[in-house]
Amino acid sequence: MKDCKTSINQHRLRVKKLLKEKNADGCLIYSSVNKYYLSGLIFKGFIYIHKYRDPVFFVQRETSLEETHVFQIKKPEEIPAILESLNYPDINFLFMEKGQMPYNDCVRLKNIFKPEKTGDATELLRIARMIKTEWEIEQFRISAAKHAEVYDMIPSVFHKGMRDIDFQIEIERLMRQNGSIGLFRTHGDMEIFMGSLLTGNNASTPSPYNFALGGAGIHNSLPIGSNGEIIDSTKTVMVDFAGNFTAYMTDMTRVYTTGEPGDEAGKAHKLSVEMHKRLMSEVKPGVSCSSVWRWSKKMAEEAGFGENFMGRKFKAKFVGHGTGLEINEPPILMERSGDVFQPGMVFAYEPKFVFDGVGAAGIENTYIVTESGVEKLTVFEEDIIKIP
Amino acid sequence: MKDCKTSINQHRLRVKKLLKEKNADGCLIYSSVNKYYLSGLIFKGFIYIHKYRDPVFFVQRETSLEETHVFQIKKPEEIPAILESLNYPDINFLFMEKGQMPYNDCVRLKNIFKPEKTGDATELLRIARMIKTEWEIEQFRISAAKHAEVYDMIPSVFHKGMRDIDFQIEIERLMRQNGSIGLFRTHGDMEIFMGSLLTGNNASTPSPYNFALGGAGIHNSLPIGSNGEIIDSTKTVMVDFAGNFTAYMTDMTRVYTTGEPGDEAGKAHKLSVEMHKRLMSEVKPGVSCSSVWRWSKKMAEEAGFGENFMGRKFKAKFVGHGTGLEINEPPILMERSGDVFQPGMVFAYEPKFVFDGVGAAGIENTYIVTESGVEKLTVFEEDIIKIP
Repeated sequence: MKDCKTSINQHRLRVKKLLKEKNADGCLIYSSVNKYYLSGLIFKGFIYIHKYRDPVFFVQRETSLEETHVFQIKKPEEIPAILESLNYPDINFLFMEKGQMPYNDCVRLKNIFKPEKTGDATELLRIARMIKTEWEIEQFRISAAKHAEVYDMIPSVFHKGMRDIDFQIEIERLMRQNGSIGLFRTHGDMEIFMGSLLTGNNASTPSPYNFALGGAGIHNSLPIGSNGEIIDSTKTVMVDFAGNFTAYMTDMTRVYTTGEPGDEAGKAHKLSVEMHKRLMSEVKPGVSCSSVWRWSKKMAEEAGFGENFMGRKFKAKFVGHGTGLEINEPPILMERSGDVFQPGMVFAYEPKFVFDGVGAAGIENTYIVTESGVEKLTVFEEDIIKIP
Repeated sequence: MKDCKTSINQHRLRVKKLLKEKNADGCLIYSSVNKYYLSGLIFKGFIYIHKYRDPVFFVQRETSLEETHVFQIKKPEEIPAILESLNYPDINFLFMEKGQMPYNDCVRLKNIFKPEKTGDATELLRIARMIKTEWEIEQFRISAAKHAEVYDMIPSVFHKGMRDIDFQIEIERLMRQNGSIGLFRTHGDMEIFMGSLLTGNNASTPSPYNFALGGAGIHNSLPIGSNGEIIDSTKTVMVDFAGNFTAYMTDMTRVYTTGEPGDEAGKAHKLSVEMHKRLMSEVKPGVSCSSVWRWSKKMAEEAGFGENFMGRKFKAKFVGHGTGLEINEPPILMERSGDVFQPGMVFAYEPKFVFDGVGAAGIENTYIVTESGVEKLTVFEEDIIKIP
């Protein structure tokens, strides 16, 4: 069943199951991504999920929600009386979005519900969201198809003498014309606008954010991505945009060039493609996410590209990550990850190499973990793409 | 003195002064906007501002910060020992960004510093940031000039038969080509991509976010702005983008039309322009922000546009707001505001009117409060702009 409603019911069941496992009473959800996950909509207000009962929606503005229990409220202080009127059990152990809700808001909820114990709904929901439903996978397929369509059009918007930022802007427009919702949702303290495009030395420039690569950006207030470098034929152009054509984002990177970026980048790029082949042949349910980091790093080092792998001045400590409503979801493919691949996970794998003066090489694809292996979602040309 | 460094020193002095007034020891800053405010850069890590001493920077990645006290750390648990090594006094009363930092992170900081008392650095910094320095005002002037330049080019990217979203995408590109950094920073739980463009009935559609107007958006996961309506000559097109050409955003709204949107919208638009004139003649230091809301609402009602003022199905409860590093800063121009205009405040005033089937009318400008009145930053054609 690939419809949205069925999927949302599955999400709720998953959250309820996790709440039962924790012996919690329920969770109170406020963040946009988790409200979307549990209702298919974004509205102003809260969702209360009790471990055994129907969800209750507390709405602070007009909404088109069609649910059994929808209540208009002005402030969260009104919630307990409403739950009592529905004969919902007292809340002794409440999960709140402690990993994303501001301290003040969590304290306010604690004062309202006075639970004996609280748990972290951020973590709980991230675990629930990690395994995707059929409908969610369908959303990724829609995003992936559009993502590939746009990447195929990228050479058509290049013209000679462009700066990286000019090229980036044209790609942004292509993305939007093809249905990108624009907003790039991340978890934690990461900021980015639509995606990143890196060429030349800027690919070696570290950024304060936890993305695989950096870039100086065009302004001190957003130090990531394009910085105004002129694109020339001795450089690579790495394009890494969020495929946010649905709420479920694919992540895909490809490398373009207008000339000959040199043997080293070419070799490293081929190695990245090889790594993706190995991933497809080795990853299946039960395999550890850390193993992928280990053999990826080893392959890079054995090929003599250890110094270029995952950055130069600053190196990313992961080679892949789950993706979904936010670009950085579990699992994480890194040395110290305790995650194991499970059917229904959707993740991006991005072995990348950076060469001073040239730019970055390598590709990123988004994969689904199936019952027996992985399936590539972002099917598109993987060699370095020549811009005529 | 209009240079950045002088300005940042003023910001630090302002924060120190507020800390002294609160009898606090210091504040620990982690958010991007506040780090930018206090250092002119964004880096991964923390800034500690003690009420009497020099700021100390705790950096978790490479940075180009040039400051006296910069320390590389892996985790915030290392901070107390470093402060001790600098002979900084013990922290008994610590301000943390409780209004924006996730609960878990604040609790972690509390466990590290074990202060007897904590205060809200979010509120403290919002108060500090409310009064702008000369350099900050210069940043607004740069943003305002670019903002006007782009709005002047808007008619050139329109073509007949366009949907609102198509027009929006072309404006986004103009914004970016002229230096918009893209990312639209808001405070609290508001989400938006670059700005909003509303035409026809979509202007009457409420949104879950706390912007002046709404719109359904193109996807359930981002219910704001353009929704795919065809732009025709009987409708207005309201364009409201963030002027993020520097880190300091101007806010400006103008109305475009390809034909004749009718007498009512035209009259209401003229009324909005009149209201701006009144604002310029009446607002000066000492005037209350709530008074502007009151006379604006009254003018709307007396002209017979009470039902159209600030939305239809859902009405915004404010008619203006401070702006800066985030689009929604203090002061707020609403009924129950306790704010009073002070020299150095920068705010947007946006009396708007919505007509079912037609769209929105009215303009928004950004103003600085001077010693004797207000100065308009977003100087640009105010009538409804005809698209040839």
